[in-house]
Amino acid sequence: MKIAVLPGDGIGTEIVAEAIKVLDALGLPFEMESALVGGAAYEAHGHPLPESTLKLAKESDAILFGAVGDWKYDKLDRPLRPEQAILGLRKHLGLFANFRPAICYEQLVGASSLKPELIAGLDILIIRELTGDIYFGQPRGRRTAVDGHFPGAEEAFDTMRYSRPEIERIAHVAFQAARKRSKRVTSVDKANVLETFQFWKDVMTEVGQQYPDVELQHMYVDNAAMQLVKAPKAFDVIVTGNMFGDILSDEASMLTGSIGMLPSASLNAKNQGLYEPSHGSAPDIAGKGVANPLATILSAAMMLRFSLNQEAAAQRIEAAVQSVLAQGLRTPDIYSAGTTKVGTAQMGDAVVTAL
Amino acid sequence: MKIAVLPGDGIGTEIVAEAIKVLDALGLPFEMESALVGGAAYEAHGHPLPESTLKLAKESDAILFGAVGDWKYDKLDRPLRPEQAILGLRKHLGLFANFRPAICYEQLVGASSLKPELIAGLDILIIRELTGDIYFGQPRGRRTAVDGHFPGAEEAFDTMRYSRPEIERIAHVAFQAARKRSKRVTSVDKANVLETFQFWKDVMTEVGQQYPDVELQHMYVDNAAMQLVKAPKAFDVIVTGNMFGDILSDEASMLTGSIGMLPSASLNAKNQGLYEPSHGSAPDIAGKGVANPLATILSAAMMLRFSLNQEAAAQRIEAAVQSVLAQGLRTPDIYSAGTTKVGTAQMGDAVVTAL
Ligand SMILES: CC(C)[C@H](C(=O)O)[C@@H](O)C(=O)O
Ligand SMILES: CC(C)[C@H](C(=O)O)[C@@H](O)C(=O)O
Repeated sequence: MKIAVLPGDGIGTEIVAEAIKVLDALGLPFEMESALVGGAAYEAHGHPLPESTLKLAKESDAILFGAVGDWKYDKLDRPLRPEQAILGLRKHLGLFANFRPAICYEQLVGASSLKPELIAGLDILIIRELTGDIYFGQPRGRRTAVDGHFPGAEEAFDTMRYSRPEIERIAHVAFQAARKRSKRVTSVDKANVLETFQFWKDVMTEVGQQYPDVELQHMYVDNAAMQLVKAPKAFDVIVTGNMFGDILSDEASMLTGSIGMLPSASLNAKNQGLYEPSHGSAPDIAGKGVANPLATILSAAMMLRFSLNQEAAAQRIEAAVQSVLAQGLRTPDIYSAGTTKVGTAQMGDAVVTAL
Repeated sequence: MKIAVLPGDGIGTEIVAEAIKVLDALGLPFEMESALVGGAAYEAHGHPLPESTLKLAKESDAILFGAVGDWKYDKLDRPLRPEQAILGLRKHLGLFANFRPAICYEQLVGASSLKPELIAGLDILIIRELTGDIYFGQPRGRRTAVDGHFPGAEEAFDTMRYSRPEIERIAHVAFQAARKRSKRVTSVDKANVLETFQFWKDVMTEVGQQYPDVELQHMYVDNAAMQLVKAPKAFDVIVTGNMFGDILSDEASMLTGSIGMLPSASLNAKNQGLYEPSHGSAPDIAGKGVANPLATILSAAMMLRFSLNQEAAAQRIEAAVQSVLAQGLRTPDIYSAGTTKVGTAQMGDAVVTAL
């Protein structure tokens, strides 16, 4: 079981260190190797995703990823910016299936912007297609417009696209995930405006016929953005494209109020996966020892489950996280009166103890 | 002052009737002419936007629009579906600037999903570009993929695009609107992934230099979807493209909990405008006399302000709406214990009385 460890920038190094503590404590025969990625890799090698890092990632069964990005790289040319490392890993490893749970932990209900009764018990799984859509579609660029409202003007453009097999494979992922949950899938599209998403809807419907035990509902993306606010618990599994998934998964995770708790997994057809917290690199608190390591620790649990076939170990970690929450331990992002404020390392240590 | 009245489908006819009552009560010399649109027009003329309706709209100073759509038209070919009427009106009249306020009325704070302290006093103005982007970009369609992950497979595609003058004109609209408010604009993009929105960001920054008194902030769309949930009051004016604006304006209006109160305006370069409630046709409650007419009545106020140059009359309507809320009158969508439940017509009558 080979794990590539890519801590990245900002709080990435701190939170990944705690996840490694937890993995080490399991006593399983992991081989772990670290490499630079994002801004840290740019500083050292002039590129956010150096060849050596990509090679390590490809050779590993799983990648434990921290976070990348810092304001200081905003002025770099796009191909050199930290987030290109994430896009590059997704593309080169074919990580097409992104799992982002939005779960509201009982003890953290108060951290949500939403009224407790609307959010308590929330447990949504957002499945986002991650290697297609307008993220990677060609052609794209700048040119002189030949038609449209202002022919002759300078314009920029991108191409949204999905092919049938791309939609089919993510549909199967969603229906199979729903079978292990409450058997309901909401496919989010914009079929009333976009050719791409009329096709998406058609193919989802076709694949759905192979899963008669799973209920399939279609919803427009604008309505989904509303319903997530109005009645988030009405959702179970949401499946959508790369662009809409980017927006809706962030909206859904913020609904919980505790994005510092939410892991994610991005898998390819061989179950190789990249595991990272749903939050970013938070350069404002980097190096202060206050970041919440639990999303990364829970990402390590997902890694054990999906890529390393260690379900029991995954459950041990998840139970340990529940236990530290029950003990009242909180990093500052989830702190509330009556609980005990701890730092990044203390939180990691507490999870190890609870194991 | 010629007004085209297009009630449309579902609750459209009921709510527009109340807005007309209110307009009539102002005693101003309006010329109003009605026409069918959406499903109603399809039934009568075989097209959701008949030539005669489009002609009337073009010849008028303003369009008062109800809502279109019903599940029963879902199986029609896309060009015949009710919502194509809206897209057609936007396109043929060049209604590029969509204004969608998200306001939380003091008396309705409790209707929101959000905790009262996060939403009380909310007053955001979302300015959405409405005639460009992936909504209208060509080419689009289905074809055989020649590259990508599955060359040879069937695929669907759309084109996202913005030209410099399209971005410039909506930027000016946003900066000028901000000057009348708290002088802050958040431009929402996805410049880290899309060429179109890197260009958008560049042009926004350029135009912003002509407004040194207005503070310009850039935000990625996924982050904006989160910040709207976390701290909506941190926003003042949001400007964004057609697709992102569709999603974020719906999210923002649902945050208030009282989408039945929210008007919208869509303007072209000549200040001709289409005015409609932010909510839809609600076929489930159509014909029952329970729909909230206030969003449509407030849309009529926006029409007086923006297209008919009748600021005083606009303010009279807005004050009358405040007054009926203060009286405790509520349609079922905004009803809470201790207030008086009224129907659509009673609410319209109360606004007329309050005038
Ligand atoms: C950093 C960025 C390119 C990325 C995306 O848009 O996919 C991020 O927002 C995410 O969701 O992982
Ligand atoms: C009906 C649909 C085409 C339309 C849109 O996507 O613009 C609607 O959602 C809106 O926001 O007015």
